[in-house]
Amino acid sequence: MAVNLEDASFWETRAGRCFFGRGALGRRESETCSESAMTGPRFTPLAQSLPASVPFVGPETAERAQGRGFAARLGANENVFGPSPKAIEAMEVAAADIWKYGDPESYDLKEALAAKHGVAPENIAIGEGIDGLLGYLVRLLIAPDDKVVTTAGAYPTFNYHVVGYGGDLHTVPYENDTESPALLLAKAREVDAPLIYLANPDNPMASVHSGAVIQGMIDDLPTGAVLCLDEAYIEFAPEGSAPAIDISHPRVIRFRTFSKAYGMAGARVGYAIAHQDFIKQFDKVRNHFGMNRAAQAGALAALKDEAYLKQTLENVRRAKARIAEIARANGLAPLRSATNFVAIDCGHGAEFAKAVVAELGARGVFIRMPFSAPQNRCIRVSAGRPDNLDLLETALPEALRAAQTR
Amino acid sequence: MAVNLEDASFWETRAGRCFFGRGALGRRESETCSESAMTGPRFTPLAQSLPASVPFVGPETAERAQGRGFAARLGANENVFGPSPKAIEAMEVAAADIWKYGDPESYDLKEALAAKHGVAPENIAIGEGIDGLLGYLVRLLIAPDDKVVTTAGAYPTFNYHVVGYGGDLHTVPYENDTESPALLLAKAREVDAPLIYLANPDNPMASVHSGAVIQGMIDDLPTGAVLCLDEAYIEFAPEGSAPAIDISHPRVIRFRTFSKAYGMAGARVGYAIAHQDFIKQFDKVRNHFGMNRAAQAGALAALKDEAYLKQTLENVRRAKARIAEIARANGLAPLRSATNFVAIDCGHGAEFAKAVVAELGARGVFIRMPFSAPQNRCIRVSAGRPDNLDLLETALPEALRAAQTR
Repeated sequence: MAVNLEDASFWETRAGRCFFGRGALGRRESETCSESAMTGPRFTPLAQSLPASVPFVGPETAERAQGRGFAARLGANENVFGPSPKAIEAMEVAAADIWKYGDPESYDLKEALAAKHGVAPENIAIGEGIDGLLGYLVRLLIAPDDKVVTTAGAYPTFNYHVVGYGGDLHTVPYENDTESPALLLAKAREVDAPLIYLANPDNPMASVHSGAVIQGMIDDLPTGAVLCLDEAYIEFAPEGSAPAIDISHPRVIRFRTFSKAYGMAGARVGYAIAHQDFIKQFDKVRNHFGMNRAAQAGALAALKDEAYLKQTLENVRRAKARIAEIARANGLAPLRSATNFVAIDCGHGAEFAKAVVAELGARGVFIRMPFSAPQNRCIRVSAGRPDNLDLLETALPEALRAAQTR
Repeated sequence: MAVNLEDASFWETRAGRCFFGRGALGRRESETCSESAMTGPRFTPLAQSLPASVPFVGPETAERAQGRGFAARLGANENVFGPSPKAIEAMEVAAADIWKYGDPESYDLKEALAAKHGVAPENIAIGEGIDGLLGYLVRLLIAPDDKVVTTAGAYPTFNYHVVGYGGDLHTVPYENDTESPALLLAKAREVDAPLIYLANPDNPMASVHSGAVIQGMIDDLPTGAVLCLDEAYIEFAPEGSAPAIDISHPRVIRFRTFSKAYGMAGARVGYAIAHQDFIKQFDKVRNHFGMNRAAQAGALAALKDEAYLKQTLENVRRAKARIAEIARANGLAPLRSATNFVAIDCGHGAEFAKAVVAELGARGVFIRMPFSAPQNRCIRVSAGRPDNLDLLETALPEALRAAQTR
């Protein structure tokens, strides 16, 4: 059976049955949730209200389910070109020193990032990927039933954190496959939201606004609303897509990462840039010794290797051009991309796109697709190495035929 | 000026003045907390109530403050003997693959841990060190004003999380420099606490209870109370210090780590063992892609190298014996240790112990001391390499003399 990562029933099956190993040790029938709950822990009402399903399924899970690995890993918007050799070397050197906790201040990395962005170290918070920092941000700002505004189908991990802290998510639709500052601001005013999420460039559609448009949104931000500006993919975007960093604004916080352009997703290094009074709040809740020491060293080395970053951006540009070619050769419409992936319009509804994802997966090519309509007419393919894209080129026509005859 | 890490005024100074770099960019006078708060983010009442001070200061911070590095790093209970060479090799290999996110299930590591402990993978949660997992545990169990019971002077990071989620900490004193199951249980009954923390062995005193005593505590656990049993140092303890792992109990959760015996503090890999219904709750709140991929690989390799672990335990045993000798040669009384560090009774009050810590720090030897009376009559020295202990042997008599004449 081919595993369809986008198929809700697959996720539910996993969550409900505990896919791997459950019962393997002959656990007693009496050890069930309903019975033990009688004498079980007193979870908070909020924790009890949260869904028990596993919200995130990695490619490894699908590989285990289908009994073999993917030959092309193009579904998680990872950077297959990898980190700078200098970053790899720094992490190798740090491996022998891993008996030491990482510096809880990430001092050296913070200094380097501050210099790069022309801000003070006090304007930067470093954390376990943007995901970890988004969790801290939501925790600082959102009490149960507080309103949060985002775009339906935008970054799901942000939503996961909002739900996890009891927030009340309000969504607006995409507009021309782009997150809409105007709709987000209007909704934030309507519900009086203390927090608004916008990614620029966007994931999963790879669309982008100019820095002027984002600056306009900042200028028009309602009093009492924080703009969480996720710029995970900003290095891939055209010049001018990011407004100037202005750390005097008390309610704009921008997120950057080493997971994408710097090719270090597995290291977990993200950072936030904001007013120092805002950044200081993170020290109240963050896991102070949470950073991996080798990751700190690797990120610092990666940051300094600008030539390698430039090469990566060129590699990604070429890969995206080829993905677009492959799409067109198969009668599909690639969307313009300001990221390291391409959204491809498959020309039919979500069911067809799901089938294409599944059929590509069965042929060893791991991709994903957007979650919400009408964006879920598309598939999402990360920039791959030439050999990855050879596989895509071979598999896509077969997958399309198979999807059409399902 | 010698930096005294245990000196509260040093911490407050750092928190209040933003020790490094503030004002370096000529920030405008108007950019102050009081003004920007008027139009600042709407932080939750809980977040606003939390202390703004930085609760954790790493040795690197002290090194920067005193303008030179420590020659012996014996203050954080790190394992100076480092990880298995096989773990280092696994992390080096993984460094080149760091462009991939880690497996969000930590499947391979979880399987190996399950096999080691004779439980199912569903009985194990893996996270960003015990610290990260303690945060998730508190989040699941503690709503504002819920009571939590621990020992005054025991692990501060646990308290940090409890305060961070608005919990109401109730403490009992040490009994004979040991955490007291009887006092903890009595207090938990008195205040009807949903969560009790006990570390066995204890940090900072290095004392330990037999497994039978801990089992007695489990058997006597009040209905509705969870026992958080922190066994970070259990590998160093005498045989029989850990009761048999019983994952049928719905309210006992045990924490283990790769930071201590396995020498990988900087990797951030900890895990919890509990009833599967308890473990499943962590999926509701954890950072699913929070694990460093190289750390996952390193931990797996470390776990398999039992010969190296055995060697480490022997190295630590010898180091502790030598620390005890050095203490006695200086007229101090080392306490028995079931961990990788030795608490040394300096024979006077906290002020004297603080002075010894400061004077050792000024001589390049980083150590710490317990936080609460009367345990703060002691200093705490981690097992060091022979060259580290040579330095300690030289510095300690000088530091004691200097502390006496302060």
